[in-house]
Amino acid sequence: MDIAASTPTPDNASKRPRTERGRKTLRKLLDAAAIEFGERGFHEASISGITRRAGTALGSFYTYFDSKDEIFQALVHDLSGRVKAHAAARLEGEKDALTGERDALSAFLEFAREHKEIYRIIDESEFVDPESYRNHYENTAQRILERLQAGSADGDLRPDLEEAHAWAVMGMNVFLGLKYAIWSDNRTPEDIADIASGILKNGLSK
Amino acid sequence: MDIAASTPTPDNASKRPRTERGRKTLRKLLDAAAIEFGERGFHEASISGITRRAGTALGSFYTYFDSKDEIFQALVHDLSGRVKAHAAARLEGEKDALTGERDALSAFLEFAREHKEIYRIIDESEFVDPESYRNHYENTAQRILERLQAGSADGDLRPDLEEAHAWAVMGMNVFLGLKYAIWSDNRTPEDIADIASGILKNGLSK
Repeated sequence: MDIAASTPTPDNASKRPRTERGRKTLRKLLDAAAIEFGERGFHEASISGITRRAGTALGSFYTYFDSKDEIFQALVHDLSGRVKAHAAARLEGEKDALTGERDALSAFLEFAREHKEIYRIIDESEFVDPESYRNHYENTAQRILERLQAGSADGDLRPDLEEAHAWAVMGMNVFLGLKYAIWSDNRTPEDIADIASGILKNGLSK
Repeated sequence: MDIAASTPTPDNASKRPRTERGRKTLRKLLDAAAIEFGERGFHEASISGITRRAGTALGSFYTYFDSKDEIFQALVHDLSGRVKAHAAARLEGEKDALTGERDALSAFLEFAREHKEIYRIIDESEFVDPESYRNHYENTAQRILERLQAGSADGDLRPDLEEAHAWAVMGMNVFLGLKYAIWSDNRTPEDIADIASGILKNGLSK
């Protein structure tokens, strides 16, 4: 799927773009905001910095957002949705649960390498917009839990998997991404995903 | 071990306390800083807020620290060391590697419940003091790797464990702590540590 073509939707329904041109402008603003917030952080970032990077007039910004806080919140929601869509695209088709988890992590690592700003933005949302931060992780854990429980139902995975297993898998993925997508790139996403998959398959026991 | 009695050491050697009374004052300042930064965040926190909570004179602060940035950095170093010491105390004695990992996680979850501010402070260091943030996780992963490799040498664990396994274990622990020590407390540390230990023992396979 083409992520760049996905349609962002501000939470404020009255401000959603109604035309294709409007959708493109909104996409440009969110992409520019990702760079501006990622490079400068929330407090140093400015609306004029965002519109300059987007190549749009200041008025276009206010067509869709009332404030810097509002576009930041929309951006966290957008990034969270794009991570989800990127993994979902890789998960399509019949697969056993462990292969699915491996492919989802590999897709996430690729996405994070291409969009290194995502860590800083999601992490900064803990301070700027705590509800979005919590929603991002609660929703991600819920999706992982649903995949794990589908794997249990299919007989691939243990029958007793629950919420805490999903949080453990998410934590593994987030920290492998921090280390091998953001802080270093000397290992391939497949290599790292295979390591994580080995843990989920057999643990660390001899 | 008595964590409250541990001796904090500012990075600037000339400012280390030379007397027992000095060590107590420094401990009070760091404990007060943990509450001040944890409740108000770095930008809203103030040196006078720290000394008020510590019940010390402003002059005492400047005996040990030059600035708000400097005590924040010392605090991240202190918290990182206390987490390490708390886990190490639980790890003493002969244990197989998986029991050791379970006990280390259980100790961490207890520590995080008693010191909920630790997540906010470590997380905020990503923005306030990125080097300390990185050091905290690099050092923690290194300790986990050493434990895992000792387990391999003892024949408890697979022989091929490496850095990425340690980052996966650390990520599991950090996110289980976020969910079950900071955001909720309806599960016991032992219950959550058993879930993680089950993954490390046998994975999620049927």
